[in-house]
Amino acid sequence: MERIREFLTRGDRLAAQLGLEIVEIGPGRAVARVRLQDMHMNAAGIAHGGTIFALADFALAAACNSRNQLSLAIGASISFIKPGRAGVLTATASEAAKGGKLGAYVVTVADEAGETIAVFQGTVYNKNIPVLGD
Amino acid sequence: MERIREFLTRGDRLAAQLGLEIVEIGPGRAVARVRLQDMHMNAAGIAHGGTIFALADFALAAACNSRNQLSLAIGASISFIKPGRAGVLTATASEAAKGGKLGAYVVTVADEAGETIAVFQGTVYNKNIPVLGD
Amino acid sequence: MERIREFLTRGDRLAAQLGLEIVEIGPGRAVARVRLQDMHMNAAGIAHGGTIFALADFALAAACNSRNQLSLAIGASISFIKPGRAGVLTATASEAAKGGKLGAYVVTVADEAGETIAVFQGTVYNKNIPVLGD
Amino acid sequence: MERIREFLTRGDRLAAQLGLEIVEIGPGRAVARVRLQDMHMNAAGIAHGGTIFALADFALAAACNSRNQLSLAIGASISFIKPGRAGVLTATASEAAKGGKLGAYVVTVADEAGETIAVFQGTVYNKNIPVLGD
Repeated sequence: MERIREFLTRGDRLAAQLGLEIVEIGPGRAVARVRLQDMHMNAAGIAHGGTIFALADFALAAACNSRNQLSLAIGASISFIKPGRAGVLTATASEAAKGGKLGAYVVTVADEAGETIAVFQGTVYNKNIPVLGD
Repeated sequence: MERIREFLTRGDRLAAQLGLEIVEIGPGRAVARVRLQDMHMNAAGIAHGGTIFALADFALAAACNSRNQLSLAIGASISFIKPGRAGVLTATASEAAKGGKLGAYVVTVADEAGETIAVFQGTVYNKNIPVLGD
Repeated sequence: MERIREFLTRGDRLAAQLGLEIVEIGPGRAVARVRLQDMHMNAAGIAHGGTIFALADFALAAACNSRNQLSLAIGASISFIKPGRAGVLTATASEAAKGGKLGAYVVTVADEAGETIAVFQGTVYNKNIPVLGD
Repeated sequence: MERIREFLTRGDRLAAQLGLEIVEIGPGRAVARVRLQDMHMNAAGIAHGGTIFALADFALAAACNSRNQLSLAIGASISFIKPGRAGVLTATASEAAKGGKLGAYVVTVADEAGETIAVFQGTVYNKNIPVLGD
């Protein structure tokens, strides 16, 4: 799983551009984090929906590929419950259901005070090929 | 909370029509159940997406009104991970985030074997008026 | 396409239970309808989210199977914009995107005044087998 | 509407960071665009879900604020139907439903060949205050 984390850290260009990092990865779960900066904000001066989505999606990618089986997100939905104003946002992804080819994950995004500001649900398709070879 | 359960059981006509029942209710959480019958199926012979959604939505209604503050669902999304074939389906709703006016709930729907067949996310708007008077 | 309509009308048991009917079907599109009755309502006395979802999902099933290729919904999301109070609700489904195996459909649900009360998005998986034989 | 476009172009920091631009804005509708670069990609070498979501969300922001009434996205869902590989992606947002306080928008994201690669649905809450003063 550490190799998956390195692979995503090196290979995910959007995550690099936005300063997103994976801080934990386990079987079917992962935690990603971002420290909010000016570049993450929308015109209303709060964290952009695209920033929060990208962070949740990055945590999802780590969680759903954690077992070294290539999975792709085919859909996601997100509810924005509170604004993200400043500091570090943390996204925690965990597997909620697993079928033959499909999986569902729930990701919560919390601010530094531990308040959940957004809830994300992602559906992934398992390609049944490894992410990384030997 | 028992009174909220009675109110929903008596007042929710779709739930009565489809045989959905609330079996547990607590602060920000609820469990609803249905025993699958012919009327719940789609043309492919499995539980209709509408059945599974209605069950999850009913659990959501119980959970988000559990504190006697009227809340309405303004949006929901659902992932169908496995087919629901027979027996009892159980939907478990819990609050995942709470803001000033908005709340987000996650509902998982499981079959009798305990396998999660669908994952549902609902967003509610709190009207700040009681569901039931004194 | 008329045979698909008959197949769904006869085979979809939830639609029969709730009085949902397909009134039009064309390539990648369909229209379904329900006349609201007491059984369709929630405890707040308006059309149940489960009713509106089931209607939209039924229109989706007709649209995505219209070309006689078996497709299953793997996910959907719905926004409830206005209450559905009485009269006939009409759901209009149309294909918004088509990939190798996946398709996305948008369904709008309108009341008798022609006001759109809900917007639904469904994702389907194409099984590459016919719905009906010769 | 031109002033709204300028306000978003100047004020949306994530859009600036990712090179997203609004190319059209009209009442209840907008078009946004991005030319895919290395920074937009995920570890699989295709356009990141976060990139596609951010582009759709930016088009949504322009469309739902086009009439100078401040609206905030409270939820969104997206279906990824085809990969986005290279060139320009174009997101077209249009209002699908409008209630007292809530609105629903559909955004399609297409590649240079005109193929729709993703479909996005957003729900917004209208704050009933102007985006810009006189």
